[in-house]
Amino acid sequence: MAFQYGYRRAIAAIVLALFSAAGYQAAAQDRSGTEQNSAKTLGVVLYPGFEVLDVFGPVEMFISVGAERLRVIMIAEEAGPVASGTMSDKAGNWSGPKVVADYGFADAPHVDILMIPGGAGTIKQLTNTACHEFLKQRSDAAELVLSVCSGSAILAKAGILDGHKATCNKEFYSLLISNGPKVEWQSKARWVEDGKFVTSSGVSAGIDMALAVIARVYGEQTADGIAKGTEYTWSKDPANDPFAK
Amino acid sequence: MAFQYGYRRAIAAIVLALFSAAGYQAAAQDRSGTEQNSAKTLGVVLYPGFEVLDVFGPVEMFISVGAERLRVIMIAEEAGPVASGTMSDKAGNWSGPKVVADYGFADAPHVDILMIPGGAGTIKQLTNTACHEFLKQRSDAAELVLSVCSGSAILAKAGILDGHKATCNKEFYSLLISNGPKVEWQSKARWVEDGKFVTSSGVSAGIDMALAVIARVYGEQTADGIAKGTEYTWSKDPANDPFAK
Repeated sequence: MAFQYGYRRAIAAIVLALFSAAGYQAAAQDRSGTEQNSAKTLGVVLYPGFEVLDVFGPVEMFISVGAERLRVIMIAEEAGPVASGTMSDKAGNWSGPKVVADYGFADAPHVDILMIPGGAGTIKQLTNTACHEFLKQRSDAAELVLSVCSGSAILAKAGILDGHKATCNKEFYSLLISNGPKVEWQSKARWVEDGKFVTSSGVSAGIDMALAVIARVYGEQTADGIAKGTEYTWSKDPANDPFAK
Repeated sequence: MAFQYGYRRAIAAIVLALFSAAGYQAAAQDRSGTEQNSAKTLGVVLYPGFEVLDVFGPVEMFISVGAERLRVIMIAEEAGPVASGTMSDKAGNWSGPKVVADYGFADAPHVDILMIPGGAGTIKQLTNTACHEFLKQRSDAAELVLSVCSGSAILAKAGILDGHKATCNKEFYSLLISNGPKVEWQSKARWVEDGKFVTSSGVSAGIDMALAVIARVYGEQTADGIAKGTEYTWSKDPANDPFAK
C-alpha cells in the first residue's frame, strides 16, 4: 500500500538515500526496470506561449503514477526548448520559462494518452494546420485525449471534438467556444468526460481532471494517494465549477 | 480593474488577437515596455530531480502578476536544461521533463525574491556546498526567500533558516526537519511567514503560499484576481493544514 504510487515511492527513495546513497541507487534502478514494457505513454503537446500550470499541474499528478505504469513525454512541432508565457514580443518570442520537447511531431512515438494545454499561445495554434493534423492523427490512435483551459479550443478547431461534450476556461468562454460550433459545450463544469475526450476548465482545473483520469485508468485509491502525497485537496465533483458565470 | 494583473492582461491579448493579429502585437509590445525598470526579479533555483509542481504552481501565479512588475527567471548551478523527476538512473540522470535554466550560479543577476523547490533531488543538494553558498549569498541580498516542500530542508542545511520559524512537507516531516536543528519547525502549517522567509508545506501548498506572497507585495486584490483568472480556489489561512499529522 505504502509504495503503490510514484510520489510515495520517490519519497521512499529519499528516505533510503538519506541513510544510504548506494541503497537509493539500487532501489531506483530496480523500480525503474519494473514493468517498463507495459507502461502507457502520456504525450503532452507544447507550443510557444503555453500556460505553465496547464502542463505541470496534470503532469505532476501523472508522473506520480510511476514511470513503470505511465511514462510522460513532451512533444512540440520541433523538438527542443519551447517558451511558455503570457506575452510575446514583436518577433513572436514568448518570455516565460522554457520546457524541452523530447520529440517533434515527425518523430514522436505512439501515445496512449494525448494532452494539450491552453495559454495565450492558443491563438496561433488555432490556425496551425500542422498542429491540427498531428492532433487529429494522434487523437484517433489514443485511448484518451485530454485538454486543459483553452486547449479544447484547439481540439475543437481541428474538428476533433465535433459531436462531443466538452468545456474550456470560463473567463473567455463565449469567445473560445466559437472555435467549435459542432461541439456540445458545457458552460458549468470543472471538467467534462465524454468517452475518450476529457476536457477541463481553466488552468488549475487541469489538476482535478488529471486525478479523475488517474482514478479512471489506475483506480481511485491511486489517485487519492497521489493527491495526499502532493498535499492537494482534490475537488472530485466534475459539476462543481466555482468559476462558471 | 480588468487589466490589473498579468493573467487577465494575457487573456485580453487573446481577445484582441482573435479580432486583430496586428492589434495584439501592438498591445503586447506596449505593455511589455511599461515600467520594466521598476520590475522585481524572482529567481527560481532548479536542480536535477526538482518537483515540477513545486516550481510551476508558484511560477504560474507569479508570472500572472505581469512582467512589468515581476520578472521570473530560472537559475541552476549551470545554465541549460535541468531534468525534474522522481527517479534517477544509475548515472544520476533524472527522467522527468527538462526545464531550461536561464542563468548559472556564476552569472545570475540580482534577485529580489529567491525561491527553491523541493523534490527527490533534494537529497543531493543537502550536501552541495556550491548550492548552499549561492543560496546564502542570494538570501542575504533578497527581500524575500521562499521554499516549497523539501526545499526548506536545503535552506536549513545551509544554515539560512537558523532561529526562524519554517515548515516543510508533512509526509516525511521528521526526516526533513532533522536537517535544521536550529530552525523553529512548525508541524501544522500550510505555509509559514517569518520576516523575509516564507516556507510552504508539500508540493501544492506552494500555490497557496505564492498567492500569499503576491498579496503581501502587490496587494490582496491582485492575488484574488490571479486566483480567479487561473480558476484556483485559494486556501488563504496559513494555519489550515489538512495534511499535518
